[in-house]
Amino acid sequence: MSGMRPTGKLHLGHYMGVLKNWVTLQDQYPCFFSIADWHALTTKYDDTASLKDNILEMALDWLAAGIDPQKATLFVQSSIPEIAELHLLLSMITPAKWVQTDPTLKDMVAMLHEDLSYGLLGYPVLQTVDILSVRAGLVPVGKDQLAHLEISRDIARRFNHLYQTDLFAEPRPLLTETPMLIGLDGRKMGKSFNNAIYLSDSAEETWSKVKTAITDPARVKRTDPGTPENCEVVYKYYQAFADANAQAVTAEECRAASRGCMDCKKQLGELINAQMAPLRERRALYASDKAQVETLLKTGGDKARARCQETLQQVKTLMKLF
Amino acid sequence: MSGMRPTGKLHLGHYMGVLKNWVTLQDQYPCFFSIADWHALTTKYDDTASLKDNILEMALDWLAAGIDPQKATLFVQSSIPEIAELHLLLSMITPAKWVQTDPTLKDMVAMLHEDLSYGLLGYPVLQTVDILSVRAGLVPVGKDQLAHLEISRDIARRFNHLYQTDLFAEPRPLLTETPMLIGLDGRKMGKSFNNAIYLSDSAEETWSKVKTAITDPARVKRTDPGTPENCEVVYKYYQAFADANAQAVTAEECRAASRGCMDCKKQLGELINAQMAPLRERRALYASDKAQVETLLKTGGDKARARCQETLQQVKTLMKLF
Repeated sequence: MSGMRPTGKLHLGHYMGVLKNWVTLQDQYPCFFSIADWHALTTKYDDTASLKDNILEMALDWLAAGIDPQKATLFVQSSIPEIAELHLLLSMITPAKWVQTDPTLKDMVAMLHEDLSYGLLGYPVLQTVDILSVRAGLVPVGKDQLAHLEISRDIARRFNHLYQTDLFAEPRPLLTETPMLIGLDGRKMGKSFNNAIYLSDSAEETWSKVKTAITDPARVKRTDPGTPENCEVVYKYYQAFADANAQAVTAEECRAASRGCMDCKKQLGELINAQMAPLRERRALYASDKAQVETLLKTGGDKARARCQETLQQVKTLMKLF
Repeated sequence: MSGMRPTGKLHLGHYMGVLKNWVTLQDQYPCFFSIADWHALTTKYDDTASLKDNILEMALDWLAAGIDPQKATLFVQSSIPEIAELHLLLSMITPAKWVQTDPTLKDMVAMLHEDLSYGLLGYPVLQTVDILSVRAGLVPVGKDQLAHLEISRDIARRFNHLYQTDLFAEPRPLLTETPMLIGLDGRKMGKSFNNAIYLSDSAEETWSKVKTAITDPARVKRTDPGTPENCEVVYKYYQAFADANAQAVTAEECRAASRGCMDCKKQLGELINAQMAPLRERRALYASDKAQVETLLKTGGDKARARCQETLQQVKTLMKLF
């Protein structure tokens, strides 16, 4: 089980860091991938004009990346009202201090322009429900998400203990080493810095962005030998997109000044575009038939919902509700 | 709109302080009365063995008191999943500090044996949803509930402001002066002190409890003149159950020592039993056919749910959700 908040179009960082991993996982496990629109509201409740578009664009990005609706279950979180009900029920057994002391909360609050909401405070409870409602055993996470998953494990354990059941397996992290791509200007990749290559960018847009990428700042003239280790962006991208042999050749030619930074960027642009070509093709195909995308989200939603309904029914029985 | 948490059988304090007022209100307004079982979970999540029974017994107590399902809409909160979804949505726009600084929260936490839960922290948000989901304009409250209602007004105002709507009228308090009955031993009336007369008590049980009620502690012998103002329980009950003339006669005879405390109690027992007789009759009638009670709760639930569904649909449209 995993998910993403639909807050905007996805870029190469999301692809290399998350989606490529999901594409591998869908061949190894039954996967549930949630477009977590309720989670988006924890900070974006006052900026929902493009929420519907963002949901569909995110589905297109996922499908482009190779998420296969025949293999994995893709769905929109808010299409499952049982998640809201389970959230209310699990909020009753979750000590407030577990969420109040969540270490990632501080970072989120720092990014906000205003006070955190009661809903944002409950972020880890909602995330727990995402996982437990489909009774997922494994959650692919980055190291920064481990604390949240620890709360989910605690809530699962507490529920099992309180109601003398083993309904919820404690979800385990599936830690994967994925390359962390920074933005073309060396800062964190993101919309606000205009330093990202999006999955929806064309080959031309990609090339014109790659041209602006920073290289070894000490290599001023074409004839200066370069230091790949100091080439924070272009060489790092090489390491993500080129094979080991191409990486070695590039590094050698850079050190010998036998190739210039622009040559390097051209080759990188070609590498990225070659890898993105099948994604662009799939994206265009799905984008030409958005009704189909909505249908497959609905089909996925129905499948996930059936599982959540089962879970909710069992939870209500165990809690001896009316 | 009003509601009660189904945490146990109702006593004379509930009847005189709340239910009698509801019975009057149901002739003046369309009323929604909710058996708030989700609210019960905010503190009783680990003690749900009798929740179902408590819900049915509470319905019986309401019907006994004269709540008429032909006039008012009676329902069980958890039969309306839309309330859980609205709770999640409104939690996103409610600043955490509004609930964290709720003055009644402190009292609730003091009564708990353990840490407060995330769900208990959200008590006023859930209460707000109870009110706003049926778009109620008036809430009969005691003075101790005014702070909670103020949060509900704030949330309604904030929603309207954020989404440029007038969907939610700010719910107004319907303050009613109702007699506050204390327990027969002079302490707060409640289950834990075994000092309450329940609506489900028989005439005999009532009389045997009234016999134990405390009177003017300074009146030791039958021949001592008494001071009704110092008769904290029996005379206070007189003021609630007897008419003005009977009250005056009682006070006079007490001061003149022309009647004893036991005479007083006998008369009080008769007064209470006379008022409770029609309630006991109605209670017995409904109790003999619990299936009928479940049916009328379901009918009420369907009616309230239709209204909540309308509200949720409008909220989702205004928030531009998927």
